[in-house]
Amino acid sequence: MSKTMLAVVKPEAAPGAEIREVKIPEYGPNDVLVKVKVASICGTDLHIYNWDRWAQKRIHPPLIPGHEFCGEVAAYGKQVSSVKEGDFVSAEMHVACGKCVRCRTGEAHICQNVKIIGVDSNGAFAEYVVIPESNIWKLDPAIPQEYASILDPLGNAVHSVLAGEIAAKTVAITGCGPIGLFAIAVARAVGAARVFAVEVNEHRRRLAKEMKADLVIDPSKEDVRAIVMEQTDGLGVDVVLEMAGHPDAIRTAFNVVRSGGRISLLGLTSKPISLNFSEDIIFKGLTVQGINGRRMYQTWYQMTALLKNGKLDLHPVITGHMAMKDFSQAMERLQTGEASKILVYPNGPN
Amino acid sequence: MSKTMLAVVKPEAAPGAEIREVKIPEYGPNDVLVKVKVASICGTDLHIYNWDRWAQKRIHPPLIPGHEFCGEVAAYGKQVSSVKEGDFVSAEMHVACGKCVRCRTGEAHICQNVKIIGVDSNGAFAEYVVIPESNIWKLDPAIPQEYASILDPLGNAVHSVLAGEIAAKTVAITGCGPIGLFAIAVARAVGAARVFAVEVNEHRRRLAKEMKADLVIDPSKEDVRAIVMEQTDGLGVDVVLEMAGHPDAIRTAFNVVRSGGRISLLGLTSKPISLNFSEDIIFKGLTVQGINGRRMYQTWYQMTALLKNGKLDLHPVITGHMAMKDFSQAMERLQTGEASKILVYPNGPN
Amino acid sequence: MSKTMLAVVKPEAAPGAEIREVKIPEYGPNDVLVKVKVASICGTDLHIYNWDRWAQKRIHPPLIPGHEFCGEVAAYGKQVSSVKEGDFVSAEMHVACGKCVRCRTGEAHICQNVKIIGVDSNGAFAEYVVIPESNIWKLDPAIPQEYASILDPLGNAVHSVLAGEIAAKTVAITGCGPIGLFAIAVARAVGAARVFAVEVNEHRRRLAKEMKADLVIDPSKEDVRAIVMEQTDGLGVDVVLEMAGHPDAIRTAFNVVRSGGRISLLGLTSKPISLNFSEDIIFKGLTVQGINGRRMYQTWYQMTALLKNGKLDLHPVITGHMAMKDFSQAMERLQTGEASKILVYPNGPN
Amino acid sequence: MSKTMLAVVKPEAAPGAEIREVKIPEYGPNDVLVKVKVASICGTDLHIYNWDRWAQKRIHPPLIPGHEFCGEVAAYGKQVSSVKEGDFVSAEMHVACGKCVRCRTGEAHICQNVKIIGVDSNGAFAEYVVIPESNIWKLDPAIPQEYASILDPLGNAVHSVLAGEIAAKTVAITGCGPIGLFAIAVARAVGAARVFAVEVNEHRRRLAKEMKADLVIDPSKEDVRAIVMEQTDGLGVDVVLEMAGHPDAIRTAFNVVRSGGRISLLGLTSKPISLNFSEDIIFKGLTVQGINGRRMYQTWYQMTALLKNGKLDLHPVITGHMAMKDFSQAMERLQTGEASKILVYPNGPN
Repeated sequence: MSKTMLAVVKPEAAPGAEIREVKIPEYGPNDVLVKVKVASICGTDLHIYNWDRWAQKRIHPPLIPGHEFCGEVAAYGKQVSSVKEGDFVSAEMHVACGKCVRCRTGEAHICQNVKIIGVDSNGAFAEYVVIPESNIWKLDPAIPQEYASILDPLGNAVHSVLAGEIAAKTVAITGCGPIGLFAIAVARAVGAARVFAVEVNEHRRRLAKEMKADLVIDPSKEDVRAIVMEQTDGLGVDVVLEMAGHPDAIRTAFNVVRSGGRISLLGLTSKPISLNFSEDIIFKGLTVQGINGRRMYQTWYQMTALLKNGKLDLHPVITGHMAMKDFSQAMERLQTGEASKILVYPNGPN
Repeated sequence: MSKTMLAVVKPEAAPGAEIREVKIPEYGPNDVLVKVKVASICGTDLHIYNWDRWAQKRIHPPLIPGHEFCGEVAAYGKQVSSVKEGDFVSAEMHVACGKCVRCRTGEAHICQNVKIIGVDSNGAFAEYVVIPESNIWKLDPAIPQEYASILDPLGNAVHSVLAGEIAAKTVAITGCGPIGLFAIAVARAVGAARVFAVEVNEHRRRLAKEMKADLVIDPSKEDVRAIVMEQTDGLGVDVVLEMAGHPDAIRTAFNVVRSGGRISLLGLTSKPISLNFSEDIIFKGLTVQGINGRRMYQTWYQMTALLKNGKLDLHPVITGHMAMKDFSQAMERLQTGEASKILVYPNGPN
Repeated sequence: MSKTMLAVVKPEAAPGAEIREVKIPEYGPNDVLVKVKVASICGTDLHIYNWDRWAQKRIHPPLIPGHEFCGEVAAYGKQVSSVKEGDFVSAEMHVACGKCVRCRTGEAHICQNVKIIGVDSNGAFAEYVVIPESNIWKLDPAIPQEYASILDPLGNAVHSVLAGEIAAKTVAITGCGPIGLFAIAVARAVGAARVFAVEVNEHRRRLAKEMKADLVIDPSKEDVRAIVMEQTDGLGVDVVLEMAGHPDAIRTAFNVVRSGGRISLLGLTSKPISLNFSEDIIFKGLTVQGINGRRMYQTWYQMTALLKNGKLDLHPVITGHMAMKDFSQAMERLQTGEASKILVYPNGPN
Repeated sequence: MSKTMLAVVKPEAAPGAEIREVKIPEYGPNDVLVKVKVASICGTDLHIYNWDRWAQKRIHPPLIPGHEFCGEVAAYGKQVSSVKEGDFVSAEMHVACGKCVRCRTGEAHICQNVKIIGVDSNGAFAEYVVIPESNIWKLDPAIPQEYASILDPLGNAVHSVLAGEIAAKTVAITGCGPIGLFAIAVARAVGAARVFAVEVNEHRRRLAKEMKADLVIDPSKEDVRAIVMEQTDGLGVDVVLEMAGHPDAIRTAFNVVRSGGRISLLGLTSKPISLNFSEDIIFKGLTVQGINGRRMYQTWYQMTALLKNGKLDLHPVITGHMAMKDFSQAMERLQTGEASKILVYPNGPN
C-alpha cells in the first residue's frame, strides 16, 4: 500500500478547496481504515467550500471534508473485533463520547461532547478515511453502493419521519433538498396517508414529484395553507417535517399543522424567528421537536431494514456522479440549485 | 316504506338459522335506521349458527345476527344531527356506555358495559338495522362497498398492527383467517420490513401469498422457529400478531419473537394454555398485549385514511358474494375452510 | 325554590361588574342545575373584569363569569342518569362538541368547537349554574370543598406535569401564579427529584417556598441559568413547566432546559416571541408542548386520585375567602399581586 | 498492597461455601479494581449456596459469588479515564456486550451475550472485585453506604415501577421480598395513589407495613380479589408488580388487575403456569411485561436522583449486618424467612 493518497483539502481559512496528495491517515487500536468507494456531497460541504459565517466559526483548516460515504475495510487496529478486511461499510460520523448522561441513556445523538468526522476532523473526500470501530456500520452487500453512500442524510430523514406516529397520517414536508426528498420516500414507505411537498425551487419540485409526493406545492405562487386545509377537510396535516430552515417555511409549518399535531424541525435556521406562542403552540396543543442527527443506532437499523427489503426508491435524488478530481465543478453545480445529491468517487469508478 | 323486512333469524337455542319476515325495527331519538347494502359473515356468526358452547352461554334467541356491514341512512331520530338520508355509512357495533372510566379516558374499546349489536341485540343480516348515532361511521363514497362492509374485522387488524411500533420491523402473523390476512396488508402498508405468515390451512396459505406476505410457512410441515430464526439473523421477529387462538400458534408466537419484542394477542382461545413465564416473558423482556375490538375512533380514522388513499388491496380475502336468502349455504362453505370472507346482500345486488 | 338568584354580572362592554338579581337559569333534558357552594377566581376573570384587549375580543356581555367551582346538584333534566339531588360535584367547564375528530380520538381538550362556561356562556359566580351532564364531575365527599372549587386550575397543573416523564427528573417552574404553585405540589407528589421555582413577585416566591419548592429563584436579582446549571451538574433541568407567559420567562425556559428535555408551555403570551430555532430547539433535540385545558377526563381521574389519597397540600395557595357580594374587593386584592387564589361563597358561608 | 485476600468461595458443585484466602484478582486495561466496603446478599446467592437445580445448570465452581456491593476504587487499568483512586462506586453487574442489536439500540438490559459478575465470574463477596470501567457507577458521597450496596435490587424495583405510567395509579405488589419491599417505597415516591402489598410471610408483611404500603394483605387468609375490588370501586388496580414468581401470586396478579391495566412480571417462576388467554389478557386489553435487570443506565440515574434527594426510606428492608466470615450464618438466617436484606462487610466494619 502506498503511503500517500489524494484528497479534497480545505487548506486555509478562505473560500475554495484543492485536490492534494496527503499522507494516508494513521489509525489507532480501536480504529478502522476504510478505502472510500463513494462519497456524497452535503449542503454542509458547500458551507465549508464557500467559507460562510458558520464555517468561519466552526471549521479549523486544514481539513479534509466529507461525512457521507461507503467503502471497504482496508485495515484496522488490534482491538477491533467486529470487521475484517474487505467488509463493505459506512459509518455514523457523529462520534459520541459514550460517557455523558445522554450517551448512557440511549440519546447519543445529542451527546454533549460529540465530534463530527469531516467537520471537526478529516473526513471522507479522500481515498482513505479513519473511523472508530464503534461508529462503523457494516452493510449487507444487497444494498447498492449509491445508497450506501447517502445513509447519513437518509438517516436524518428516517429519524424525522419516525420521531412520532406516522402511519395513516397526513404529512407536509417543507423544503425538498435531499433530506426532504428522502423524507417523502420514507413517509410513503411507512404508511403516511398523504404527503404534501412544499418547495420554491422548480428543480426540487420536479424531484418531489418523482419521489411520488401526493401533491407538490409552490409557496411562491400558491396559497399553501388554503390548499392543505382544502385537502384535509379543514383540519390541517397531522405531521409537518420542516426541512428548509427558512423563516417562511417555518411559518408555513405552524400554519398548516392541525391541533394536537406534530412539527419535527430539522432545517437549520440562521436567524431568530418570531412565534405567537399562544396561537401557534398552546391553544393548538402542539408538539414541536428538534431533530438532530440520527438515533444511534436505531435509525441505522431502521433504514437498513427498509433499504434491504426494497421499500425505498431513492434514485431521483441522485443527480450526479463525478470523479473526486472534479470536486470544484460539483460545487458549482450545487450552487446553481439544479442538482440534488452528487456522488464523488475518490478511488475511481467502480 | 313497508313495515316488514327479511332477516336471518336465530329463532331458538339450537343450531341453524332461518330467513324470516319480521318487523322493521323501531328507532329512538338518538338512533339511525340503516338500509343494509352489504353484510359480511364473521367467524362469530359461525359460532352462533353452530350453537357451540360459547354461543350457548352468550346468545339469547331469537336474534338477528350480523355485525359487519355498510348501507344507506333510511331514517333517523329527532336528536340526530350528523347524518342525512342517503348517507353511505358503516358502524362500530360495540356500543360503549360512555360513562365508565374506560370510556371517559379514551379506552371505550374495553368499556365495562359494552353491548354488541348482532350478538347482544339484533344485527345486520337484515334489510334494515338500527344503530345509535354515536356509533355511525360516515363513509367517503370513494371507498368501495365491498370494503365498507368489512371495516369491523379490518379494524381489528389495524388495531393489532398499530398497537406498537411497526415501521421497519419484522412481523410474524400466526393464523390467516380474514383478520390475519388483513393484517398482512396493513403491516405491509405501514412499512413492516418483512411479514411472515404462519397458517396450517392450504387455502388460507394461498390467500396469504396473494396478500403478499414475504414468506408463508406451513407449521404442520415446516419448522417455523428454524425458518424465522434463519430469516432474522438468529434474532426472531420484532412483532408477532397472534390471530389464531390455537395453543400451537400461541406457542409459536413465544418461540419466534425476539428479546424485547411485542406479541399482540387477538385470536380467542377456548382452553387454558401453559407458559414458562421466566423463559417466555421475563428474561426476554417481552411485551404481551391483549387486543380487543377497535379503538374508538382512532382505528376508524386510521383505516379510512389507508383505504381512501389506496394503501390496501383486500380483494383476495373476499372469496364469495351471496344473496341473503342463501345464508345457510354460505355457512356451509365457511365450514369447509375453503372460504375466507363471504359477503351477503340483504337488499339484493347493487 | 325561588325564581331568582344573585350573581356577579358583567352588564356591558366596559370595565367592572355588578351583583344583580337575575333569573335562575333554565336547564335542558341533558343538563344539571348546580347550587354553587364555593367558586374560585381565576386570572381570566380579572381580564374580564378589567375589560382588557383579550376580553374585548372574546366576551359578549351581559355575562355571568366564573369557571371554577363546586356545589350540590339541585335539579336535573330527564335524560340525566348519573347524578341525583344533593350530589357533591364540580365540572369541566370546557364543553367539547363530542363529534369532531379530536373529540372522537381522545383529545377533547383541544376540541375545535369548544365553548367555555363562564366565558362563552353564564358561569359560576352565581347561586346556581347549569352544566351539561357530560361535564359534571362527581366528587368523593372526602375531598374538601376548598379543593373541590379549584379543580380547574389544579387540572391545568396536573395536565402540564404529567404531559411527559417526570419521576426522578429535575423540574423548573417559571411563573408561580396559582397554577405554577399547584404544579410545585403536583411535581413533588409524583416524584420529581428537585423542583426549582422561578418568580419575580415576592409574595408568590414566599408561597412557592410554602409549597416546598426545593429552590426559589428571583429572576430580577439572580442569574437563573447560572444557578440551575450549578444545581444540575451543568446539564440543565429535564423539564420546564412554563406558567408565566412572559417573554423573559419563556427565554429562561429555553435557557435552563437540558438537551433532549421537555418544555411544557401553559402561560399565555400576548405578543410574539423570538426564538433561535437551531440553538434553542434543534441542536438540543428538545420537545416543546402546548398545554391546553385538562385531558377529558384522564386529568380529572388523576387529580381526584391524588387528592383523595392526601398526596397534595394546596392550602398556601388559598389566600382569601370572601362573600360573593364583595366580588369587586376581591378583584382589587388580586390586582395588587398580594393574593393568589380567592374563594367566593355565592350561597353564604358553609 | 498484599497479594491475597479473603473471599467467600463456592469451591465445588455441591451445597455450601467457604471463606478462603485467594489471590487478589488481576485487572485489564479497561478494568477497575474495587475494594469492597459493603456487599449485600441476594436470593440468587441463596440458590447458589443451596446448590439447587438452577444453580447446578448455571454455576461453574469454583466461584466467588456476590453481585450487590459498594466500595472504593483501589486501582485501574491504563485505558480507564472516568474514575480515580478512592472514588466511591457501585456497579451494574450485568456486563453487556455492547455490540449486539439490543445493546446498540438502548436495550442493553436484555443483551443477548450478557455475563453476570458474581454468577458467571468472580463477584463481590471478597475484599476486592474487578469491574469493567463501562459498568462502574460513581456515587455521590451523600448516598449512605448501606443504600449504595443494594442498588442492584433497588434498580430492579425502580425499573419495574417506572416501566409504565404510575403517577396517580393504584398498584398491587405481589410478593414482598426485598425487591417487592423496595417497590413499595419507589411506587409511593413517584406518586402511586395507593399501594396494596400481598404477601404470605408474616415477617415480610410486617416490613411491608413499615415501608408504608397503604394496605397489606395476607393471601393465605384473606380474599385478595375481593379486598382489591372493594378498595378500587370494583375496577381492580391499574398496575400489578409481580415480585413473587409463585403460581398463586401470578394468578392473583391477573385476578386483581383492571381492564387495560399493566402487569409487570419480575419474580422468576420455576414451573409453567396456565393462563386463560381470552379472559385473562385479550378481553381485558391488558399489557403484560417481562422485567429483566435494570435499564442501562436510565434506571441508575433515576434511582440516584431519588436517593440523593431523600425520596426513599429503605431502612426497614435492611435486617442484618454481618462480618463476611459469618457468611454461612447469614445464609441460615435467610433460610428461615425471618430476614430480608443482610449486609456483609468484607473489609471489616466501616
